[in-house]
Amino acid sequence: MDFQQLQQQVNFIYEIDKVKYIERKTKLFNSDRRENDAEHSWHLALMAVVLSGHSNQDIDLLKVIKMLLIHDVVEIDAGDVFLYDSVVSHTNTEAETLAARRIFGLLPPAQAEELIAIWEEFEAGETPEAKFARAMDRFEPLLQNRSNQGGTWKEFNIPYDKVLQKKSIIKEGSEVLWDYAKTLIDQSVDEGILKKD
Amino acid sequence: MDFQQLQQQVNFIYEIDKVKYIERKTKLFNSDRRENDAEHSWHLALMAVVLSGHSNQDIDLLKVIKMLLIHDVVEIDAGDVFLYDSVVSHTNTEAETLAARRIFGLLPPAQAEELIAIWEEFEAGETPEAKFARAMDRFEPLLQNRSNQGGTWKEFNIPYDKVLQKKSIIKEGSEVLWDYAKTLIDQSVDEGILKKD
Repeated sequence: MDFQQLQQQVNFIYEIDKVKYIERKTKLFNSDRRENDAEHSWHLALMAVVLSGHSNQDIDLLKVIKMLLIHDVVEIDAGDVFLYDSVVSHTNTEAETLAARRIFGLLPPAQAEELIAIWEEFEAGETPEAKFARAMDRFEPLLQNRSNQGGTWKEFNIPYDKVLQKKSIIKEGSEVLWDYAKTLIDQSVDEGILKKD
Repeated sequence: MDFQQLQQQVNFIYEIDKVKYIERKTKLFNSDRRENDAEHSWHLALMAVVLSGHSNQDIDLLKVIKMLLIHDVVEIDAGDVFLYDSVVSHTNTEAETLAARRIFGLLPPAQAEELIAIWEEFEAGETPEAKFARAMDRFEPLLQNRSNQGGTWKEFNIPYDKVLQKKSIIKEGSEVLWDYAKTLIDQSVDEGILKKD
Protein backbone atom coordinates (compact mmCIF):
# COMPACT_ATOMS: atom_id res chain seq x y z
CA MET A 1 0.00 0.00 0.00
CA ASP A 2 1.25 3.48 -0.87
CA PHE A 3 1.11 5.76 2.14
CA GLN A 4 2.63 8.80 0.39
CA GLN A 5 -0.42 11.08 0.64
CA LEU A 6 -1.19 9.90 4.17
CA GLN A 7 2.41 10.52 5.21
CA GLN A 8 2.16 14.13 3.99
CA GLN A 9 -1.01 14.55 6.04
CA VAL A 10 0.67 13.05 9.10
CA ASN A 11 3.59 15.44 8.65
CA PHE A 12 1.09 18.30 8.81
CA ILE A 13 -0.58 16.77 11.90
CA TYR A 14 2.84 16.68 13.61
CA GLU A 15 3.71 20.23 12.59
CA ILE A 16 0.53 21.87 13.88
CA ASP A 17 1.17 20.51 17.38
CA LYS A 18 3.32 23.66 17.76
CA VAL A 19 0.13 25.75 17.86
CA LYS A 20 -0.28 24.47 21.45
CA TYR A 21 2.81 26.40 22.51
CA ILE A 22 1.80 29.80 21.08
CA GLU A 23 0.69 31.99 23.94
CA ARG A 24 -1.91 34.72 23.52
CA LYS A 25 -2.15 37.87 25.59
CA THR A 26 -5.63 37.11 26.89
CA LYS A 27 -6.12 34.76 29.80
CA LEU A 28 -8.53 31.90 30.42
CA PHE A 29 -11.84 32.75 32.10
CA ASN A 30 -11.35 33.79 35.74
CA SER A 31 -7.72 32.86 35.48
CA ASP A 32 -4.12 34.03 35.53
CA ARG A 33 -3.03 31.57 32.86
CA ARG A 34 -2.67 32.88 29.30
CA GLU A 35 -4.55 30.94 26.65
CA ASN A 36 -2.71 29.17 23.85
CA ASP A 37 -3.75 29.23 20.21
CA ALA A 38 -4.98 25.63 20.14
CA GLU A 39 -7.30 26.15 23.12
CA HIS A 40 -8.46 29.43 21.61
CA SER A 41 -9.18 27.84 18.22
CA TRP A 42 -11.13 25.00 19.82
CA HIS A 43 -13.22 27.44 21.83
CA LEU A 44 -14.01 29.60 18.79
CA ALA A 45 -15.00 26.57 16.69
CA LEU A 46 -17.43 25.39 19.36
CA MET A 47 -18.73 28.95 19.81
CA ALA A 48 -19.49 28.99 16.08
CA VAL A 49 -21.48 25.75 16.43
CA VAL A 50 -23.54 27.27 19.24
CA LEU A 51 -23.90 30.85 17.93
CA SER A 52 -24.27 30.31 14.16
CA GLY A 53 -28.00 31.03 14.35
CA HIS A 54 -27.15 34.68 15.12
CA SER A 55 -25.26 35.24 11.86
CA ASN A 56 -26.52 38.16 9.76
CA GLN A 57 -26.41 36.03 6.63
CA ASP A 58 -26.75 32.36 5.78
CA ILE A 59 -23.40 30.71 6.33
CA ASP A 60 -21.69 27.43 5.52
CA LEU A 61 -20.93 26.40 9.11
CA LEU A 62 -18.38 23.77 8.05
CA LYS A 63 -16.35 26.43 6.26
CA VAL A 64 -16.57 28.77 9.27
CA ILE A 65 -15.27 26.00 11.52
CA LYS A 66 -12.43 25.15 9.15
CA MET A 67 -11.46 28.85 9.19
CA LEU A 68 -11.44 28.95 12.98
CA LEU A 69 -9.52 25.68 13.36
CA ILE A 70 -6.73 26.89 11.07
CA HIS A 71 -6.79 30.69 11.50
CA ASP A 72 -3.80 30.82 13.87
CA VAL A 73 -1.70 28.02 12.35
CA VAL A 74 0.45 30.62 10.54
CA GLU A 75 1.56 31.91 13.95
CA ILE A 76 3.86 28.87 14.21
CA ASP A 77 6.22 30.88 12.01
CA ALA A 78 4.86 34.42 12.27
CA GLY A 79 4.05 34.64 16.01
CA ASP A 80 0.99 36.07 17.76
CA VAL A 81 0.28 39.77 17.33
CA PHE A 82 -1.77 41.44 20.05
CA LEU A 83 -5.05 42.93 18.77
CA TYR A 84 -4.21 46.32 20.26
CA ASP A 85 -0.58 46.40 19.12
CA SER A 86 0.00 49.84 17.61
CA VAL A 87 3.31 49.07 15.91
CA VAL A 88 2.96 45.64 14.32
CA SER A 89 0.15 45.11 11.82
CA HIS A 90 -2.41 42.53 12.85
CA THR A 91 -3.55 41.67 9.35
CA ASN A 92 -2.15 39.42 6.69
CA THR A 93 1.55 40.16 6.66
CA GLU A 94 4.22 38.86 4.32
CA ALA A 95 5.48 36.64 7.14
CA GLU A 96 2.02 35.12 7.55
CA THR A 97 1.65 34.46 3.84
CA LEU A 98 5.00 32.67 3.75
CA ALA A 99 3.99 30.70 6.84
CA ALA A 100 0.72 29.61 5.22
CA ARG A 101 2.58 28.38 2.14
CA ARG A 102 5.12 26.46 4.18
CA ILE A 103 2.77 24.87 6.73
CA PHE A 104 -0.28 24.07 4.56
CA GLY A 105 2.26 23.18 1.86
CA LEU A 106 3.13 20.07 3.88
CA LEU A 107 -0.22 18.62 2.76
CA PRO A 108 -0.98 17.05 -0.62
CA PRO A 109 -1.32 19.92 -3.18
CA ALA A 110 -5.14 19.98 -3.49
CA GLN A 111 -5.59 20.13 0.29
CA ALA A 112 -2.86 22.73 0.66
CA GLU A 113 -4.62 24.92 -1.88
CA GLU A 114 -7.99 24.50 -0.16
CA LEU A 115 -6.69 25.45 3.27
CA ILE A 116 -4.60 28.37 2.01
CA ALA A 117 -7.69 29.69 0.20
CA ILE A 118 -9.81 29.33 3.36
CA TRP A 119 -7.15 31.08 5.44
CA GLU A 120 -6.93 33.93 2.90
CA GLU A 121 -10.73 34.22 2.89
CA PHE A 122 -10.71 34.54 6.68
CA GLU A 123 -7.99 37.19 6.55
CA ALA A 124 -9.80 39.20 3.84
CA GLY A 125 -12.94 39.20 5.97
CA GLU A 126 -15.32 39.83 3.09
CA THR A 127 -17.51 36.73 2.79
CA PRO A 128 -20.36 35.94 5.22
CA GLU A 129 -18.32 33.02 6.58
CA ALA A 130 -15.22 35.14 7.18
CA LYS A 131 -17.28 37.89 8.82
CA PHE A 132 -18.91 35.45 11.21
CA ALA A 133 -15.63 33.68 12.00
CA ARG A 134 -13.98 37.02 12.76
CA ALA A 135 -16.87 37.94 15.02
CA MET A 136 -16.11 34.81 17.08
CA ASP A 137 -12.43 35.82 17.25
CA ARG A 138 -13.35 39.22 18.71
CA PHE A 139 -16.10 38.01 21.00
CA GLU A 140 -14.17 35.42 23.05
CA PRO A 141 -11.53 37.84 24.49
CA LEU A 142 -14.30 40.28 25.40
CA LEU A 143 -15.89 37.61 27.60
CA GLN A 144 -12.46 36.66 28.97
CA ASN A 145 -11.51 40.23 29.87
CA ARG A 146 -14.83 40.75 31.61
CA SER A 147 -14.29 37.59 33.66
CA ASN A 148 -10.79 38.82 34.60
CA GLN A 149 -11.70 42.25 35.98
CA GLY A 150 -10.60 43.98 32.78
CA GLY A 151 -7.87 41.52 31.78
CA THR A 152 -5.74 42.84 28.91
CA TRP A 153 -7.66 46.17 28.87
CA LYS A 154 -6.24 46.92 32.29
CA GLU A 155 -2.90 45.19 31.78
CA PHE A 156 -2.15 47.18 28.61
CA ASN A 157 -4.14 50.30 29.42
CA ILE A 158 -6.61 50.03 26.52
CA PRO A 159 -9.39 52.65 26.63
CA TYR A 160 -13.10 52.30 25.83
CA ASP A 161 -12.90 53.98 22.40
CA LYS A 162 -10.22 51.60 21.19
CA VAL A 163 -12.12 48.57 22.47
CA LEU A 164 -15.34 49.73 20.83
CA GLN A 165 -13.56 50.34 17.54
CA LYS A 166 -11.77 46.95 17.48
CA LYS A 167 -14.84 45.02 18.63
CA SER A 168 -17.20 46.72 16.17
CA ILE A 169 -16.13 44.20 13.56
CA ILE A 170 -18.48 41.80 15.36
CA LYS A 171 -21.36 43.74 13.80
CA GLU A 172 -20.41 42.61 10.31
CA GLY A 173 -20.91 38.98 11.34
CA SER A 174 -23.84 39.39 13.71
CA GLU A 175 -25.93 42.41 14.66
CA VAL A 176 -27.40 40.49 17.60
CA LEU A 177 -24.00 39.58 18.99
CA TRP A 178 -22.86 43.18 18.52
CA ASP A 179 -25.84 44.55 20.47
CA TYR A 180 -24.97 42.15 23.25
CA ALA A 181 -21.24 42.95 23.06
CA LYS A 182 -21.95 46.71 23.32
CA THR A 183 -24.00 46.07 26.44
CA LEU A 184 -21.09 44.16 27.96
CA ILE A 185 -18.62 46.93 27.03
CA ASP A 186 -20.86 49.58 28.62
CA GLN A 187 -21.24 47.43 31.72
CA SER A 188 -17.46 47.15 31.91
CA VAL A 189 -17.19 50.96 32.03
CA ASP A 190 -19.88 51.14 34.72
CA GLU A 191 -18.04 48.50 36.76
CA GLY A 192 -14.75 50.39 36.47
CA ILE A 193 -12.88 47.62 34.63
CA LEU A 194 -12.66 49.62 31.36
CA LYS A 195 -11.73 53.30 31.42
CA LYS A 196 -13.69 55.98 29.52
CA ASP A 197 -12.55 59.61 29.75
CA MET B 1 -33.75 43.33 22.73
CA ASP B 2 -34.20 40.01 24.51
CA PHE B 3 -30.85 38.33 25.10
CA GLN B 4 -32.24 35.32 26.99
CA GLN B 5 -31.25 32.65 24.45
CA LEU B 6 -27.89 34.32 23.82
CA GLN B 7 -27.24 34.52 27.55
CA GLN B 8 -27.79 30.75 27.86
CA GLN B 9 -25.31 30.20 25.04
CA VAL B 10 -22.78 32.50 26.69
CA ASN B 11 -23.19 30.58 29.96
CA PHE B 12 -22.25 27.43 28.06
CA ILE B 13 -19.26 29.21 26.45
CA TYR B 14 -18.04 30.18 29.93
CA GLU B 15 -18.55 26.70 31.35
CA ILE B 16 -16.62 24.83 28.68
CA ASP B 17 -13.51 26.91 29.38
CA LYS B 18 -12.89 24.30 32.11
CA VAL B 19 -12.04 21.76 29.39
CA LYS B 20 -8.69 23.60 29.08
CA TYR B 21 -7.73 22.43 32.59
CA ILE B 22 -8.43 18.72 32.09
CA GLU B 23 -5.12 16.94 31.68
CA ARG B 24 -4.75 13.79 29.63
CA LYS B 25 -2.16 11.10 30.18
CA THR B 26 -0.59 11.50 26.75
CA LYS B 27 1.93 14.23 26.11
CA LEU B 28 2.37 16.71 23.28
CA PHE B 29 4.56 15.65 20.38
CA ASN B 30 8.24 15.40 21.38
CA SER B 31 7.38 16.86 24.74
CA ASP B 32 7.18 16.36 28.48
CA ARG B 33 4.00 18.40 28.83
CA ARG B 34 0.70 16.54 29.09
CA GLU B 35 -1.98 17.60 26.64
CA ASN B 36 -5.26 19.09 27.84
CA ASP B 37 -8.67 18.17 26.47
CA ALA B 38 -9.18 21.46 24.58
CA GLU B 39 -5.89 21.11 22.70
CA HIS B 40 -6.66 17.46 22.04
CA SER B 41 -10.15 18.24 20.71
CA TRP B 42 -8.80 20.97 18.44
CA HIS B 43 -6.17 18.63 17.05
CA LEU B 44 -8.67 15.83 16.37
CA ALA B 45 -11.10 18.21 14.64
CA LEU B 46 -8.38 19.45 12.30
CA MET B 47 -7.18 15.87 11.73
CA ALA B 48 -10.72 15.00 10.64
CA VAL B 49 -10.65 17.87 8.12
CA VAL B 50 -7.40 16.59 6.67
CA LEU B 51 -8.03 12.83 6.85
CA SER B 52 -11.76 12.57 6.02
CA GLY B 53 -10.96 11.30 2.52
CA HIS B 54 -9.72 8.05 4.11
CA SER B 55 -13.06 7.21 5.76
CA ASN B 56 -14.45 3.78 4.88
CA GLN B 57 -17.90 5.27 4.28
CA ASP B 58 -19.29 8.62 3.18
CA ILE B 59 -19.46 10.87 6.20
CA ASP B 60 -21.02 14.19 7.17
CA LEU B 61 -17.78 15.98 8.08
CA LEU B 62 -19.57 18.76 9.96
CA LYS B 63 -21.14 16.19 12.27
CA VAL B 64 -17.79 14.44 12.79
CA ILE B 65 -16.21 17.76 13.76
CA LYS B 66 -19.04 18.61 16.15
CA MET B 67 -18.50 15.21 17.80
CA LEU B 68 -14.79 15.81 18.19
CA LEU B 69 -15.20 19.36 19.51
CA ILE B 70 -17.61 18.22 22.24
CA HIS B 71 -16.54 14.62 22.93
CA ASP B 72 -14.58 15.44 26.10
CA VAL B 73 -16.81 18.22 27.50
CA VAL B 74 -18.42 15.73 29.90
CA GLU B 75 -15.01 15.31 31.56
CA ILE B 76 -15.56 18.68 33.26
CA ASP B 77 -17.69 16.71 35.73
CA ALA B 78 -16.65 13.11 35.10
CA GLY B 79 -12.87 13.46 34.69
CA ASP B 80 -10.52 11.93 32.13
CA VAL B 81 -10.23 8.13 32.08
CA PHE B 82 -7.02 6.68 30.64
CA LEU B 83 -7.61 4.45 27.61
CA TYR B 84 -5.69 1.59 29.20
CA ASP B 85 -7.26 1.92 32.65
CA SER B 86 -8.24 -1.59 33.71
CA VAL B 87 -10.46 -0.62 36.64
CA VAL B 88 -12.53 2.35 35.50
CA SER B 89 -14.70 1.92 32.42
CA HIS B 90 -13.79 4.19 29.54
CA THR B 91 -17.20 4.16 27.92
CA ASN B 92 -20.38 6.04 28.61
CA THR B 93 -20.77 5.93 32.37
CA GLU B 94 -23.62 7.20 34.52
CA ALA B 95 -21.38 10.10 35.61
CA GLU B 96 -20.80 11.07 31.97
CA THR B 97 -24.49 10.95 31.14
CA LEU B 98 -25.30 13.23 34.08
CA ALA B 99 -22.48 15.55 33.02
CA ALA B 100 -23.82 15.74 29.47
CA ARG B 101 -27.27 16.67 30.76
CA ARG B 102 -25.93 19.34 33.07
CA ILE B 103 -23.40 20.96 30.73
CA PHE B 104 -25.25 20.82 27.40
CA GLY B 105 -28.37 21.60 29.42
CA LEU B 106 -27.03 25.14 29.91
CA LEU B 107 -27.95 25.77 26.25
CA PRO B 108 -31.42 26.53 24.88
CA PRO B 109 -33.38 23.22 24.83
CA ALA B 110 -33.18 22.48 21.09
CA GLN B 111 -29.41 22.96 21.05
CA ALA B 112 -28.96 20.98 24.24
CA GLU B 113 -30.86 18.08 22.69
CA GLU B 114 -28.83 18.25 19.48
CA LEU B 115 -25.47 18.18 21.25
CA ILE B 116 -26.48 15.46 23.72
CA ALA B 117 -27.64 13.34 20.77
CA ILE B 118 -24.34 13.92 18.94
CA TRP B 119 -22.35 13.07 22.06
CA GLU B 120 -24.39 9.86 22.55
CA GLU B 121 -23.88 8.95 18.91
CA PHE B 122 -20.11 9.34 19.36
CA GLU B 123 -20.15 7.22 22.49
CA ALA B 124 -22.22 4.47 20.85
CA GLY B 125 -19.73 4.35 17.97
CA GLU B 126 -22.13 2.81 15.49
CA THR B 127 -22.67 5.37 12.74
CA PRO B 128 -20.06 6.11 10.03
CA GLU B 129 -19.47 9.54 11.61
CA ALA B 130 -18.94 8.12 15.10
CA LYS B 131 -16.62 5.42 13.76
CA PHE B 132 -14.48 7.95 11.93
CA ALA B 133 -14.42 10.36 14.88
CA ARG B 134 -13.33 7.53 17.20
CA ALA B 135 -10.59 6.59 14.76
CA MET B 136 -9.21 10.14 15.13
CA ASP B 137 -9.35 9.80 18.92
CA ARG B 138 -7.24 6.63 18.81
CA PHE B 139 -4.84 7.77 16.11
CA GLU B 140 -3.52 10.99 17.71
CA PRO B 141 -2.05 9.36 20.87
CA LEU B 142 -0.40 6.69 18.71
CA LEU B 143 1.51 9.43 16.88
CA GLN B 144 2.25 11.18 20.19
CA ASN B 145 3.60 8.04 21.87
CA ARG B 146 5.83 7.32 18.88
CA SER B 147 7.23 10.85 19.02
CA ASN B 148 7.89 10.42 22.76
CA GLN B 149 9.94 7.20 22.64
CA GLY B 150 6.97 5.13 23.73
CA GLY B 151 5.23 7.78 25.85
CA THR B 152 2.36 6.31 27.90
CA TRP B 153 3.12 2.78 26.64
CA LYS B 154 6.42 2.92 28.49
CA GLU B 155 5.19 5.04 31.41
CA PHE B 156 2.33 2.65 32.21
CA ASN B 157 3.89 -0.56 30.92
CA ILE B 158 1.33 -1.25 28.17
CA PRO B 159 2.23 -4.23 25.96
CA TYR B 160 1.86 -4.64 22.19
CA ASP B 161 -1.23 -6.88 22.35
CA LYS B 162 -3.14 -4.36 24.42
CA VAL B 163 -2.16 -1.50 22.11
CA LEU B 164 -3.14 -3.48 19.03
CA GLN B 165 -6.50 -4.37 20.57
CA LYS B 166 -7.34 -0.82 21.66
CA LYS B 167 -6.15 0.74 18.42
CA SER B 168 -7.97 -1.76 16.20
CA ILE B 169 -11.08 0.38 16.51
CA ILE B 170 -9.40 2.66 13.94
CA LYS B 171 -10.24 -0.01 11.34
CA GLU B 172 -13.97 0.61 11.72
CA GLY B 173 -13.51 4.22 10.64
CA SER B 174 -10.74 3.79 8.10
CA GLU B 175 -9.04 0.68 6.72
CA VAL B 176 -6.31 2.85 5.19
CA LEU B 177 -5.53 4.54 8.47
CA TRP B 178 -5.55 1.18 10.23
CA ASP B 179 -3.03 -0.30 7.76
CA TYR B 180 -0.82 2.71 8.41
CA ALA B 181 -1.34 2.50 12.19
CA LYS B 182 -0.37 -1.19 12.24
CA THR B 183 2.83 -0.33 10.41
CA LEU B 184 3.62 2.27 13.06
CA ILE B 185 2.85 -0.16 15.90
CA ASP B 186 5.15 -2.79 14.36
CA GLN B 187 7.87 -0.20 13.87
CA SER B 188 7.51 0.72 17.54
CA VAL B 189 8.23 -2.88 18.52
CA ASP B 190 11.25 -3.00 16.19
CA GLU B 191 12.57 0.23 17.68
CA GLY B 192 12.16 -1.09 21.24
CA ILE B 193 9.67 1.56 22.37
CA LEU B 194 6.79 -0.95 22.64
CA LYS B 195 7.28 -4.35 24.23
CA LYS B 196 5.93 -7.58 22.70
CA ASP B 197 5.55 -10.69 24.95
